[in-house]
Amino acid sequence: MNPTASTPREAPRTSGAVPTGTMKAVLKTKAGPGVEIREVPIPAVRPGQLLLKVLRAGICGTDLHIYEWDTWSQNRIQPPVTIGHEFVGEIIAVGAGVTEFQFGERVSFESHIVCGHCTACRTGNGHVCQNTRIIGVDVDGGFAEYAVAPAENAWRAPANVPLEVQSIMEPLGNAVHTAFSGDLSACRIAVTGCGPIGLFALGVARAAGACQVIASDVSPYRLELARKMKADAVIDVSKEDFVQRVSELTDGRGLDGVLEMSGNAKAIRDGLAALRNGGRLSLLGLPREEFGLDWNKLLVFKGVTIHGIAGRRMYETWYQMDNLLRSGSLDVRPAISHVMPMEKVVEGIELLRSGNAGKIVLVPWGQEG
Amino acid sequence: MNPTASTPREAPRTSGAVPTGTMKAVLKTKAGPGVEIREVPIPAVRPGQLLLKVLRAGICGTDLHIYEWDTWSQNRIQPPVTIGHEFVGEIIAVGAGVTEFQFGERVSFESHIVCGHCTACRTGNGHVCQNTRIIGVDVDGGFAEYAVAPAENAWRAPANVPLEVQSIMEPLGNAVHTAFSGDLSACRIAVTGCGPIGLFALGVARAAGACQVIASDVSPYRLELARKMKADAVIDVSKEDFVQRVSELTDGRGLDGVLEMSGNAKAIRDGLAALRNGGRLSLLGLPREEFGLDWNKLLVFKGVTIHGIAGRRMYETWYQMDNLLRSGSLDVRPAISHVMPMEKVVEGIELLRSGNAGKIVLVPWGQEG
Amino acid sequence: MNPTASTPREAPRTSGAVPTGTMKAVLKTKAGPGVEIREVPIPAVRPGQLLLKVLRAGICGTDLHIYEWDTWSQNRIQPPVTIGHEFVGEIIAVGAGVTEFQFGERVSFESHIVCGHCTACRTGNGHVCQNTRIIGVDVDGGFAEYAVAPAENAWRAPANVPLEVQSIMEPLGNAVHTAFSGDLSACRIAVTGCGPIGLFALGVARAAGACQVIASDVSPYRLELARKMKADAVIDVSKEDFVQRVSELTDGRGLDGVLEMSGNAKAIRDGLAALRNGGRLSLLGLPREEFGLDWNKLLVFKGVTIHGIAGRRMYETWYQMDNLLRSGSLDVRPAISHVMPMEKVVEGIELLRSGNAGKIVLVPWGQEG
Amino acid sequence: MNPTASTPREAPRTSGAVPTGTMKAVLKTKAGPGVEIREVPIPAVRPGQLLLKVLRAGICGTDLHIYEWDTWSQNRIQPPVTIGHEFVGEIIAVGAGVTEFQFGERVSFESHIVCGHCTACRTGNGHVCQNTRIIGVDVDGGFAEYAVAPAENAWRAPANVPLEVQSIMEPLGNAVHTAFSGDLSACRIAVTGCGPIGLFALGVARAAGACQVIASDVSPYRLELARKMKADAVIDVSKEDFVQRVSELTDGRGLDGVLEMSGNAKAIRDGLAALRNGGRLSLLGLPREEFGLDWNKLLVFKGVTIHGIAGRRMYETWYQMDNLLRSGSLDVRPAISHVMPMEKVVEGIELLRSGNAGKIVLVPWGQEG
Repeated sequence: MNPTASTPREAPRTSGAVPTGTMKAVLKTKAGPGVEIREVPIPAVRPGQLLLKVLRAGICGTDLHIYEWDTWSQNRIQPPVTIGHEFVGEIIAVGAGVTEFQFGERVSFESHIVCGHCTACRTGNGHVCQNTRIIGVDVDGGFAEYAVAPAENAWRAPANVPLEVQSIMEPLGNAVHTAFSGDLSACRIAVTGCGPIGLFALGVARAAGACQVIASDVSPYRLELARKMKADAVIDVSKEDFVQRVSELTDGRGLDGVLEMSGNAKAIRDGLAALRNGGRLSLLGLPREEFGLDWNKLLVFKGVTIHGIAGRRMYETWYQMDNLLRSGSLDVRPAISHVMPMEKVVEGIELLRSGNAGKIVLVPWGQEG
Repeated sequence: MNPTASTPREAPRTSGAVPTGTMKAVLKTKAGPGVEIREVPIPAVRPGQLLLKVLRAGICGTDLHIYEWDTWSQNRIQPPVTIGHEFVGEIIAVGAGVTEFQFGERVSFESHIVCGHCTACRTGNGHVCQNTRIIGVDVDGGFAEYAVAPAENAWRAPANVPLEVQSIMEPLGNAVHTAFSGDLSACRIAVTGCGPIGLFALGVARAAGACQVIASDVSPYRLELARKMKADAVIDVSKEDFVQRVSELTDGRGLDGVLEMSGNAKAIRDGLAALRNGGRLSLLGLPREEFGLDWNKLLVFKGVTIHGIAGRRMYETWYQMDNLLRSGSLDVRPAISHVMPMEKVVEGIELLRSGNAGKIVLVPWGQEG
Repeated sequence: MNPTASTPREAPRTSGAVPTGTMKAVLKTKAGPGVEIREVPIPAVRPGQLLLKVLRAGICGTDLHIYEWDTWSQNRIQPPVTIGHEFVGEIIAVGAGVTEFQFGERVSFESHIVCGHCTACRTGNGHVCQNTRIIGVDVDGGFAEYAVAPAENAWRAPANVPLEVQSIMEPLGNAVHTAFSGDLSACRIAVTGCGPIGLFALGVARAAGACQVIASDVSPYRLELARKMKADAVIDVSKEDFVQRVSELTDGRGLDGVLEMSGNAKAIRDGLAALRNGGRLSLLGLPREEFGLDWNKLLVFKGVTIHGIAGRRMYETWYQMDNLLRSGSLDVRPAISHVMPMEKVVEGIELLRSGNAGKIVLVPWGQEG
Repeated sequence: MNPTASTPREAPRTSGAVPTGTMKAVLKTKAGPGVEIREVPIPAVRPGQLLLKVLRAGICGTDLHIYEWDTWSQNRIQPPVTIGHEFVGEIIAVGAGVTEFQFGERVSFESHIVCGHCTACRTGNGHVCQNTRIIGVDVDGGFAEYAVAPAENAWRAPANVPLEVQSIMEPLGNAVHTAFSGDLSACRIAVTGCGPIGLFALGVARAAGACQVIASDVSPYRLELARKMKADAVIDVSKEDFVQRVSELTDGRGLDGVLEMSGNAKAIRDGLAALRNGGRLSLLGLPREEFGLDWNKLLVFKGVTIHGIAGRRMYETWYQMDNLLRSGSLDVRPAISHVMPMEKVVEGIELLRSGNAGKIVLVPWGQEG
């Protein structure tokens, strides 16, 4: 687990000149709302790291929170920091001690930099490492022309999917982790909340063998994307009763699993109510308040299980995702609604805020062609 | 699965005269608080049933609810009904079609009479059958001189434990089911709430291989019983901070599992907070209100699992319990605080209400010697 | 679990006259090779049973063994017995105590009649009941114009699949049980042996979310059927090296699971060799001799798991199969190579013996139209 | 996962002078039988490593194989190499980049040095890493006055157990891994083969909650040690029939699990035969030949699972073992039959070969006091 330890230090290995000088990047520059595009030094690659030319990057809801400077951001972010934790890049320099990657390879990234020493890390559960630092949150990220990240976190991007898909493997991994935290094969699954990860989850559940995949949301725009992701049925919960519709759609059998992506109190309560006895709800959505629920009726008497889902299993989730993408059984392109220049990042963030978007992918400066 | 179906109808098999006439029994006679001791007909044994002379019976919290005529009881109970769903008896008549049991055997009972036809029943999950009827709640129970119950629900009582223990296998099974719903071997386990089932769970977790067993409650009386059940540590949460004490007791590692027996909002929140990342909380306690909690911090970011626990697995739980009792590795006698005549059932119920009791066992009329 | 016990005995419920007199049936009439078509009495429906007009029936390898009168048959079969344990029928009479089915419904059958009382049965593992009796082996079966079987064993046939598929749910269930005994979603799976159950398993693995499905056999005929079942790749092990081909097909990653359907020593050894470390081999195929293998290299050092697979989980497997069929994600029609009159049962058995057949389905007398 | 990558290289951190010069060590010096005690240079600590003063070391069956120069050794060992892969030591120097350990700590070691890059390593299954190198086999080991090993592989020894127990955590981990590969709580478990790891497994199964623990062997010496490890029953399979005795001991219920430690063909066959339907056999013992078995009767029809067990889970197994030892629920001292000077290593190896020994622990030069 420490194969680099005895490697003599050396200059980064490249197949040409490592870029120096400055680059454009999207930074949180100060405590308060907003982000700025700035000219900053191109980062130096350190041992164990990769230096990348960023090819595409996705906007995450977390980026919106940082932009808005919500309470979580105020407690967590220490400006200045380059944001962006979903991206794909081409390796242009390889740090000392890195043996697994080479110049020119195209890689996507796990955003969690874990300690490797805590109980979680030492038992195959790095996704809940107690000392996690996140790329684009705690260290500089990928909304920039160039980025550095640990080789440990790199994943060779499947060559058969377009750059835009390669750039959003991190959030796709959230969907895979949520879906795979319980049975899928031959199961009836609902995805509550059709933001980008919910849309991904629809495709994941289907590709992983669910026999029925139901989507719910309040946004007609997102429900339309859910249809494009080939949901068997979509439920507009602003107009229809989720529990009753699920009962009809499942011939009264109920759901085997709910993949909860909204964090909405009613969605969670209704999701639990629509489960068959013994079913599971996997919770990735982040509730905004401490809402209650009828524990006895929804959980105890039904023998239901709730899984809290953090990050992606490192790296089972990535192998599963890679298999789904490479085999062609999973196509998430319909969930990517916008591709726009990174220069327009604020416009993208505002668009995400409006709800009238699936996943938005940014094209860095110089990558437009 | 229906081996009795073609059996010709016959008189009940006994080794002597089946008792006829009347018996004493504890009944819920009308909609409203209280219970009454009445003289009622000795029940006739029907096909598939056993007729028993009741030897001992335990008082459950549910009996208290029925006595108090709480909301749940008002919606569920249809008087008159003989209460009592924890009991052991001696078989004095065997209904037609019963092949597995004989006159004279001593049997305890699973209280859930399940339909056998729903998805849960047909997939080994009868404990969450949608059509469950409960002995002593929906049909006449065991607080009486005699009782009938389906042979399907009978369990040959281990001969190496006293009558009092044989009579409380049903609630002991709740403890076993809760404990066994996650890992136990070499695990750090806390039991929150030291009523009778919590006390049982302390012994179960220990016997099943937990390496550390911690008890919490607010009642000095119950914490003293927890000590007698050999908890490694007890936490009086009226005086001590649960999360901090657990951290000290586990050298900062946190709990692998919480067996929640109180239904108390603070106990559940603290239980989740005291879990290590990736741990599990198994919830048997029934919350009285729809309290909220910090879902993100306590559940999602930690990757925690919550299991709702209903009844006992039919009949894995009984095999596990039987193994623990027969091998002598589980001794729950210290949790049985009182043995009293069934004539004093109201006194027993009031004692249970006071909190100054562990499990209370009743001795039917004629069994005092 | 014994809801019929108190039901008064009654005449079978029908919507018309129950057929009486005689019918044609395929019987093992004596100890020795062969089967005979005979005129026998139409069976009477007893309590808990259903009487069916048989609509279609599948020939199983077991029927071939009985026909050949192999060692197993000599030890097990007690002539005379009507053979056939894969069939679908229309209910024409309902025995006393049956509440779940009605006249006119179309049902398929689980062939294992289990005791309901042993540990396996009482813990949701009826498929390994110690007292199993098998329809068409130990009791009269379905190669006949009419048949009776326990209602407990009946499964409402999915209406969206043709009669031929409805008739082979029993062996399809073997494939589902084998496949579902380990992970499938996003997994690389090989099916070794493309007889009917192997062919079914190809479709099941795909429908259940496997990302790559590889078939192997020595018969060009069967490999062609495997292609029709949409295997990603087929390996003719009479000409190609299985382990090497799998390595190429999986980019050196190896298999996550092998569904072993041949019982062939080399197939099992090669299957283990082609697994990734930590993979699983699920063994439904019945080896004909006590062959050895390199336990250390193939099993211990690789941390591999071998599952012995018997029957179908009762009734998880049926729910899974039902879901796959009803949703349309599983289409096994290409695996049904022949449909022929039951009158030609011997011809069908000989065809099965030749290896130049997938599943062969028989049409009883009077059902030809 | 690569926290050391950016650490500048530095001199090893110690609290005094690092020993230089030579030391005594037990080496395989040439291709052929035997080992030699030689004076060799004290190893230098490299980045990521720890330098230890060896306090105690255990003799493993593998050391015997290397001594005998069996086929496996001939293919694997490249002399000269210092043997010994079970040991505890005191840290006397800490290599560059090591942050988790300090001078003076007492540590035991996982013997598998894994690559960290293969699929197994990246999915929490390092115990079946494809690129494993083993301490004392592929790199210099611990039968010496001093040793170096990766800090990654070090485990802080529980302070409440004696040095001898601290030295044999590696083979104890084999026992824990084997036992924990299936259910233990409330289970009936047999350990077949009472060499040191089998003896450990008896204690582990008991401490982990098995309700019945049965031992078998052919050696009266070892069966006596099994009794000291508190087996509920011991079976001398040179005199008694294992399957019949197990049936008697379990009242006909059969075993839930077999922990196979002998590699003996008859033990494996009998172990499978003595399992209840649906049970598991976990195979750590290494068969010496490719023996066959009745797959159908022993595996398929019973729905049995066989787990191949390699090494120890890294590091779940260590956490479990640590919990069992620290809590005092596991005491393996009776399994340690001999403690002798390392100078007498050949005598120890011969003693192990004789079978009249449990675990033999060596005391290095200078540690005798």
